[in-house]
Amino acid sequence: LIRVTRRYRFPAAHVLSNPAFSDEKNQAIFGKCANPAGHGHNYGVEVSVTGEIDPQTGQVMPVELLDRLVDDLVLQPMSHRFLNDLDAFRGKVPTAEVIARVVYDLLAPEVVARGHARLARVRIVETSRNTAEYGEPT
Amino acid sequence: LIRVTRRYRFPAAHVLSNPAFSDEKNQAIFGKCANPAGHGHNYGVEVSVTGEIDPQTGQVMPVELLDRLVDDLVLQPMSHRFLNDLDAFRGKVPTAEVIARVVYDLLAPEVVARGHARLARVRIVETSRNTAEYGEPT
Amino acid sequence: LIRVTRRYRFPAAHVLSNPAFSDEKNQAIFGKCANPAGHGHNYGVEVSVTGEIDPQTGQVMPVELLDRLVDDLVLQPMSHRFLNDLDAFRGKVPTAEVIARVVYDLLAPEVVARGHARLARVRIVETSRNTAEYGEPT
Amino acid sequence: LIRVTRRYRFPAAHVLSNPAFSDEKNQAIFGKCANPAGHGHNYGVEVSVTGEIDPQTGQVMPVELLDRLVDDLVLQPMSHRFLNDLDAFRGKVPTAEVIARVVYDLLAPEVVARGHARLARVRIVETSRNTAEYGEPT
Amino acid sequence: LIRVTRRYRFPAAHVLSNPAFSDEKNQAIFGKCANPAGHGHNYGVEVSVTGEIDPQTGQVMPVELLDRLVDDLVLQPMSHRFLNDLDAFRGKVPTAEVIARVVYDLLAPEVVARGHARLARVRIVETSRNTAEYGEPT
Amino acid sequence: LIRVTRRYRFPAAHVLSNPAFSDEKNQAIFGKCANPAGHGHNYGVEVSVTGEIDPQTGQVMPVELLDRLVDDLVLQPMSHRFLNDLDAFRGKVPTAEVIARVVYDLLAPEVVARGHARLARVRIVETSRNTAEYGEPT
Repeated sequence: LIRVTRRYRFPAAHVLSNPAFSDEKNQAIFGKCANPAGHGHNYGVEVSVTGEIDPQTGQVMPVELLDRLVDDLVLQPMSHRFLNDLDAFRGKVPTAEVIARVVYDLLAPEVVARGHARLARVRIVETSRNTAEYGEPT
Repeated sequence: LIRVTRRYRFPAAHVLSNPAFSDEKNQAIFGKCANPAGHGHNYGVEVSVTGEIDPQTGQVMPVELLDRLVDDLVLQPMSHRFLNDLDAFRGKVPTAEVIARVVYDLLAPEVVARGHARLARVRIVETSRNTAEYGEPT
Repeated sequence: LIRVTRRYRFPAAHVLSNPAFSDEKNQAIFGKCANPAGHGHNYGVEVSVTGEIDPQTGQVMPVELLDRLVDDLVLQPMSHRFLNDLDAFRGKVPTAEVIARVVYDLLAPEVVARGHARLARVRIVETSRNTAEYGEPT
Repeated sequence: LIRVTRRYRFPAAHVLSNPAFSDEKNQAIFGKCANPAGHGHNYGVEVSVTGEIDPQTGQVMPVELLDRLVDDLVLQPMSHRFLNDLDAFRGKVPTAEVIARVVYDLLAPEVVARGHARLARVRIVETSRNTAEYGEPT
Repeated sequence: LIRVTRRYRFPAAHVLSNPAFSDEKNQAIFGKCANPAGHGHNYGVEVSVTGEIDPQTGQVMPVELLDRLVDDLVLQPMSHRFLNDLDAFRGKVPTAEVIARVVYDLLAPEVVARGHARLARVRIVETSRNTAEYGEPT
Repeated sequence: LIRVTRRYRFPAAHVLSNPAFSDEKNQAIFGKCANPAGHGHNYGVEVSVTGEIDPQTGQVMPVELLDRLVDDLVLQPMSHRFLNDLDAFRGKVPTAEVIARVVYDLLAPEVVARGHARLARVRIVETSRNTAEYGEPT
């Protein structure tokens, strides 16, 4: 296994509730997180890629290339936004696990298409007490 | 100097803009933070009290007493809320420095009224890159 | 892979020594950690669960349910205690790796019994320099 | 102001209770921390010295000299010990604020005696949520 | 007191030795840090400004203005450089305390000249165990 | 899975460039990291071993034994050095991923030879934003 992980951050707001549920049910499931005015987090995004170390550069993937992909596909669209408003989360409850999966699905084909490495894992650090990872089984 | 500091956290959303300004001016001053849908942070709140160490208990102030004050006056009203909606921030732009001052002004008289210590400082940790402190000159 | 990790903390004391060994042998193996009066740590406990994301809630497992299990089975019994005194560590040396396994074995059947997810891993953060994980091979 | 701060760590156990109080009173004041079997922490010790920068070395005080003082007077005597047993805490309740003051009083005359700098402040980091500082007013 | 602190980072290399000293003396004073090939750190730079909160913006100083000053005067010239080679450190030993003072002296007049606030303090975080602050007495 | 991880740190300098490339090409690939005077980092080294918990000691591997191996093979040779000068990195570009692999290859046979455990993984923490792991597939 060789895995390189880059860490990024973006602040955003969200609300945890399912519009198909009653207010009482949302409150029961999500507690304060269901407050309709929303609340927010400084989200950490850890992106791990895997592949072979290029002996010419010592890199699994050019760092700038990965940074640009994450900036274009994740940070620019999500930073300082209300996540529930975004197309990427339409019909979804934007929990940490859902964000991890959405970010993984956005990045994985683009990383592979660059021909250097593949996306191994995305971890969302929602708070210092709550994180979620989505990715390859290993 | 003797100072005890307790650290608390609450997630919340806010938007940085002054309703008296045009959209362009808000954008120029606050950048992405002016996005009207709001964004959020995991706010850290560090509350420092100062006084004398009680030789019977080894404490400047009973820990539970301080925890209860902060919970009642800060965490319960602000956690999982949109800060701009709260009375405490009416007519204010809820930057880290403004939150620090508002929290200080809420807590200071109540700490003194308990008769053990006085409030020395409040620090708001908005992100790992931006903090603000308000308090006594020392 | 989808994995959600919740982080908890509890302070406790322990001593590292095997009553079947001589004092000299305990000293040779465990060094200062064998000091019979004990010493302590702020233990971090990271609990990871895995399963499917429920499309209705965006969650692998209800957060409060996991928090309650950990509180009942781990934090309440172990917080502010001398670990060597507890039944869970009878006949064991409470190193980080042993605590990780004991916590895993306490939680795993209860997590599965709730019907949402299964326990993937438990990590014990004993100090900033020493951690141990116990769990599924992946 | 010029201030250099070195950070050290030691694990130790303690119990918070005043032998002059009844068990009920200790429980009421200190809660779980009064559990007689004790509990523990990874204590952080931040030692700040102040003075003039020596233009020949760029240092306020030789680093090794400070490290040796702290090792001799604080880390060796307190690491992996039950603090309530130590002479330095006789007749005291070893809260973070008391430890800060005891460590300050141990180090301050020795730092001055070395002729390079004086001790400005000692901060004890008991947990990530509770710290205490003792030192010069500034 | 009102104080806003922004945190920045830059990696750089340095060597601790005084060319006026013999190799033996440099070794005796600076230990491994005197290795002539140099070594490096991820320097943290914490810049604190103080003043009045502007009631229109909730800010002590426009954030972007401070970020630009620090980028121009500190990060661009020092990031990914060998500090001993820079004019700012000519004739100086680039310890944390010296870097703190140099950065303070570079920034202080420029902050004041912008007319919003004044520079209260600069802290250099050299490693997780060693920091230095330079600034106003309070 | 049972895995124990010990964390170490060493400061060092490096330059990222391939002597077979032109200056322009190195600049294009490595950016500021190609600055020939070098720059540095506080490297974190996380070493994970796996095996069986010895029921007599509660340990996967004697802690001191692992600490000594890492000190002899990694910290002593690399701390406060210019990594590109070292034999271990001859003909290599010392990126985080290359350092992870080099450290793994140095430690793995020695850990196994001690007869307690095997080396599962080495993680190099180059900055708070960039890490690399090398090790067993799981």
